[in-house]
Amino acid sequence: MINELVQDKLAAGESVVHLGFGEAGLPPLDDLRETLGRASRDTTYGKVVGSAAARAAVAGWYARRGLPTHPDQVVLAPGSKALLYAVLSIVDGAVVLPQPSWVSYAAQAALLGREVIHVPIPAEAGGVPDPAQLRVALERARAEGTRVGVLVLTLPDNPTGTLAGPDRIREVCEIATEFGVTVLSDEIYRDLAYDDRTFTSPAALHADTIVTGGLSKSLALGGWRIGFARLPEEAVHPHLRDDLIGVASEIWSSLAAPMQAVVEHAMSEPTEVVERIADSRALHRAVALAVAERFRAAGAEVREPTAAFYLYPDFEPVRARLEAHGIRSGLDLATQLLDRGVAVLAGVAFGDEPDALRVRVAVSLLHGADERQRLAALASDDPTSLPWIAAALEQVSAALEEVTT
Amino acid sequence: MINELVQDKLAAGESVVHLGFGEAGLPPLDDLRETLGRASRDTTYGKVVGSAAARAAVAGWYARRGLPTHPDQVVLAPGSKALLYAVLSIVDGAVVLPQPSWVSYAAQAALLGREVIHVPIPAEAGGVPDPAQLRVALERARAEGTRVGVLVLTLPDNPTGTLAGPDRIREVCEIATEFGVTVLSDEIYRDLAYDDRTFTSPAALHADTIVTGGLSKSLALGGWRIGFARLPEEAVHPHLRDDLIGVASEIWSSLAAPMQAVVEHAMSEPTEVVERIADSRALHRAVALAVAERFRAAGAEVREPTAAFYLYPDFEPVRARLEAHGIRSGLDLATQLLDRGVAVLAGVAFGDEPDALRVRVAVSLLHGADERQRLAALASDDPTSLPWIAAALEQVSAALEEVTT
Repeated sequence: MINELVQDKLAAGESVVHLGFGEAGLPPLDDLRETLGRASRDTTYGKVVGSAAARAAVAGWYARRGLPTHPDQVVLAPGSKALLYAVLSIVDGAVVLPQPSWVSYAAQAALLGREVIHVPIPAEAGGVPDPAQLRVALERARAEGTRVGVLVLTLPDNPTGTLAGPDRIREVCEIATEFGVTVLSDEIYRDLAYDDRTFTSPAALHADTIVTGGLSKSLALGGWRIGFARLPEEAVHPHLRDDLIGVASEIWSSLAAPMQAVVEHAMSEPTEVVERIADSRALHRAVALAVAERFRAAGAEVREPTAAFYLYPDFEPVRARLEAHGIRSGLDLATQLLDRGVAVLAGVAFGDEPDALRVRVAVSLLHGADERQRLAALASDDPTSLPWIAAALEQVSAALEEVTT
Repeated sequence: MINELVQDKLAAGESVVHLGFGEAGLPPLDDLRETLGRASRDTTYGKVVGSAAARAAVAGWYARRGLPTHPDQVVLAPGSKALLYAVLSIVDGAVVLPQPSWVSYAAQAALLGREVIHVPIPAEAGGVPDPAQLRVALERARAEGTRVGVLVLTLPDNPTGTLAGPDRIREVCEIATEFGVTVLSDEIYRDLAYDDRTFTSPAALHADTIVTGGLSKSLALGGWRIGFARLPEEAVHPHLRDDLIGVASEIWSSLAAPMQAVVEHAMSEPTEVVERIADSRALHRAVALAVAERFRAAGAEVREPTAAFYLYPDFEPVRARLEAHGIRSGLDLATQLLDRGVAVLAGVAFGDEPDALRVRVAVSLLHGADERQRLAALASDDPTSLPWIAAALEQVSAALEEVTT
């Protein structure tokens, strides 16, 4: 919605800094384009779960990240969203979501008629519920006779651009184990954690964890719709794989065969892929840090970005100043910023309190307006000094100054 | 399932004539492979419904077939199955299916918790319920207070390989209009009707009709997962498009962008595409007619194939002879034929009566074992005389003779 609104404004000749859309904003690797072209020979229906070769590549990718994985634990799909939907459709009961969290979890739960229990995130990082409040919520659900099926975690997190630390993940997993809740760990930003050493997957701590991922973010292939899931072992969650195959078979059949060849190639981590992801990570980080500074300069509190390409500033410290402009909610703030040429999303879209003065800021569309600029940004040691990024930062500061003074 | 069983037997060195799998069995056009390769540059998230250019191509394709269509009535998806699921999830109420009908309709209804009302097909063709019995079923549902939401038609039909005639479709549509039922017309075999002039879409007769299609069958691109739907006008079925976008957005987001370029190209019907479909249609027809003769020679009743690459023989006339071999059901028959090197699917998989002696026969994997043979079959004026097809026909006759004498 915001994206189409911004495209309309741009088409009308307006200058808009587009911080409203979670697209990686980088070109595809030639290597992957060639892989897709070569694989176009493959037009036969394959297995629902994906080819053995592609699943082996994904299993190896997890193994290199400390999670030994059998290829039979891997399922491919046209996007990890499809897998999230399928898992939510299979595991009965209420769904616990961090508040705020990515828009589609709650929307999927609504389509499936599932109750959602929102638990606020801790102060230091998003993607996980605050452990003490999680315990209270699960105890209340138990007392009310509500079965809780799934706890969704986002590691690293959209909308906050942060990666919860190992201790916090451990606390949350211990509670999930204690209450017998399945964890659904959305790790699509896994390779965009700025410091890989701090990454801890719940799958290493809580056996009944389903991990989802894909190539949309780390390799900027959103439009190719490539997702995958790592399932727990059969003994840990009986029938899950069979049920997932049943749902997948009746909705999407399989990931397109040529896209499976892309998975096989990319997830085996050839040098070009590893280097491109490293360059992308560095670029996202540099731009996120620069944008965070602009929001802090305007008086907002911003968690230090530690992953992906998002910020989640909170303007509560300058509420009085915003009120002078008639801004009383995140939606008011987003509307007034858009009027001043800066597109962001109000936190309420992520399930946050409507009157919170919080918005989500996606920085990745600042990298460049075309492939030439984006490749230059990827190659730059100092991307925020590139003229198009510097100009966008100035436009952001100007708009923020207008609404906060 | 049958496909994996057959692959295992083939891998073990057994000779199996594979009549059990509904894959078109033909190579992709080079033209389409090149289109996909070129379109690999497109990696951005696009509109849920698909690009304007691809939807315009689909709209034009329908218009050339007598159904004026606005591009906003078109939605693309990774397979038409995803669209069928989405429509069934949106339109409330029981689902009426022809008996027998393609396996996934009932499976999707089951996933969605929808009641299914099976209505037998008329004697001359499948894909539609017998009109008189349809009326009885809808009157009974009304009397019982059961809301009926959707009537699914398959035109042309899998499993019977027939295209219901205009009169029959008209009768069924009149009943659908009278009872206020949405028609979901699965027309994925549309361009494989042997005589195109006899094709009548329910969308031309009953305004509240959703048509689905794709490139899996006519262009043998099953593994590319390309589907589309033509929706009724907004005034006819308010909110359907918005609801469909809502479901699509939360499950699969969009058809992969490079695949949308394939739609744009193929559905504009360049000469190579038109010729390839014509050659495929002629090949499927020649082989289906030859296989039908073999089944008739063994005493089965077989509807004259008029579309696609299926037959649905009924061995009722030779029940006594089959009983001498212990065959009392379609499943017994399929099992004994597989023991004799011929793989078919029992009718019960399509919702038919378990004790009916009916099986579905897919002839398209006879065309060849590799690309060279398949291209030779496509180019041949007399494909059933090609040695590999002739040999398979002999093996079918031998197996049929064993179980019927």
